Amino acid sequence: MKWCRFSTGGPISYGIIESATGGDTITEVEGTPFDSYKKTSNTYKLDAVKLEVPVIPPTFYAAGINYPEHVTWAAQMRGEEPVLPQQADVGYRAINALVPDGHDIIVPKDATEMLQYEGELVAVIGKTCRNVTEEQALGYVLGFTIGNDVSERTWQRNDRTMWRAKNTDTFKPMGPWIVTGLNPDDLHVVIRVNDKIVGEYDAATAIFGVRTFISKMSQYLTLVPGDVLWMGTDGATENMKDGDVCAISINDIGTLTNKVNWQK
Amino acid sequence: MKWCRFSTGGPISYGIIESATGGDTITEVEGTPFDSYKKTSNTYKLDAVKLEVPVIPPTFYAAGINYPEHVTWAAQMRGEEPVLPQQADVGYRAINALVPDGHDIIVPKDATEMLQYEGELVAVIGKTCRNVTEEQALGYVLGFTIGNDVSERTWQRNDRTMWRAKNTDTFKPMGPWIVTGLNPDDLHVVIRVNDKIVGEYDAATAIFGVRTFISKMSQYLTLVPGDVLWMGTDGATENMKDGDVCAISINDIGTLTNKVNWQK
Repeated sequence: MKWCRFSTGGPISYGIIESATGGDTITEVEGTPFDSYKKTSNTYKLDAVKLEVPVIPPTFYAAGINYPEHVTWAAQMRGEEPVLPQQADVGYRAINALVPDGHDIIVPKDATEMLQYEGELVAVIGKTCRNVTEEQALGYVLGFTIGNDVSERTWQRNDRTMWRAKNTDTFKPMGPWIVTGLNPDDLHVVIRVNDKIVGEYDAATAIFGVRTFISKMSQYLTLVPGDVLWMGTDGATENMKDGDVCAISINDIGTLTNKVNWQK
Repeated sequence: MKWCRFSTGGPISYGIIESATGGDTITEVEGTPFDSYKKTSNTYKLDAVKLEVPVIPPTFYAAGINYPEHVTWAAQMRGEEPVLPQQADVGYRAINALVPDGHDIIVPKDATEMLQYEGELVAVIGKTCRNVTEEQALGYVLGFTIGNDVSERTWQRNDRTMWRAKNTDTFKPMGPWIVTGLNPDDLHVVIRVNDKIVGEYDAATAIFGVRTFISKMSQYLTLVPGDVLWMGTDGATENMKDGDVCAISINDIGTLTNKVNWQK
């Protein structure tokens, strides 16, 4: 099942995307996928609506450094020995930075050229969850979507926190929709800039997987419907420049596409 | 004006607290202080309702190390030279951890004895705000409340992020209400454990004040109604043990009181 949030000029609704002859359609629902919902009689062509960020999370979690090659690359950049994380310590990103598929990544004038993509698998929590085992964890996931953890590396290195390096407005594209019923171990992430593949990896090579993070987090905190967990990226990342189009694809989910718009 | 969120067994509403002969009363409103609202004819005795967290923020910002004596003390604890922050880099806390005035701070069994309070002034954003000057900043603040940035120092030192050190469920008491029309430079924070004063400071001695943070943040991100900005604490902090009652008072706001409940 494929869930989206969309608008047609007025208020935002959740919708269910279905394949149909002549193009995908969206059936508007009353309610949300996290609660009770009812299909309405309103249907739209997918390409005739504006897709919104598929969920506004109460808390926006991010695994951060969670793939071996990315850890190694990041350490090399800093001239340090790579140190793999020893436990699943989750971090945070901020709501203000979220934008949907198709929205520009708007880069402040004073950013340096070190503006980079990070293509990530995103788990969306479906049910309230506390003290769950790794075996139970996926039962609390509604589905998966895609995130681009856009990062200004100079700010990331020099600021005390990652507030503007990773959470400047528009630096967190997420979407285009949420797909249910997927096994994260089967997912493969491909990152393209201007149609050229610049990175790809299997989600299953994460140092700590979705099940481990959810189980560990839930020993200390309550995950609630709509919370998102961005799983981190693998490999080296490269600079993007004004006008570049970054597209992140995950099999069985889709593609999240956003263009870099550097403020003059 | 004094805004609260409260319930009487049913749904949660915003209310306006007013002094009256025989004790404070709450007038229930339709709507929110961030939007349009209307007083209803429902009034309650303040001591007959359950106060809730006064706002659930879209994004939960925290200044972190922002007072000179606290920076010096924290550096001494780590055996390092104190380094004052050079710019207003904001951090984050998490929604799951928020609890209202009067709610227990529930400490997981595996926490170490290094469980400490941090009494803080909290600014609540009232209007959408982007690219504002320091002079304009307070015009975007609805009012002020009180926060206790409860911290497990062993986890804070050893984990890669502060997720469980500062964001374990119940580790972020906030309240009891929001007071409008205050000048943050006039506010004095007093922290008591079991009625003994363990710390006090003037909010104005912050390294970066409310105006500076809001102006700087707004150069990169959009602050929205309900966002909260916790301003950090000053001085040394001490361990709390099971049954301790921590009370943080700020003149012209009130007192936030929470008891430590250590899981057996």
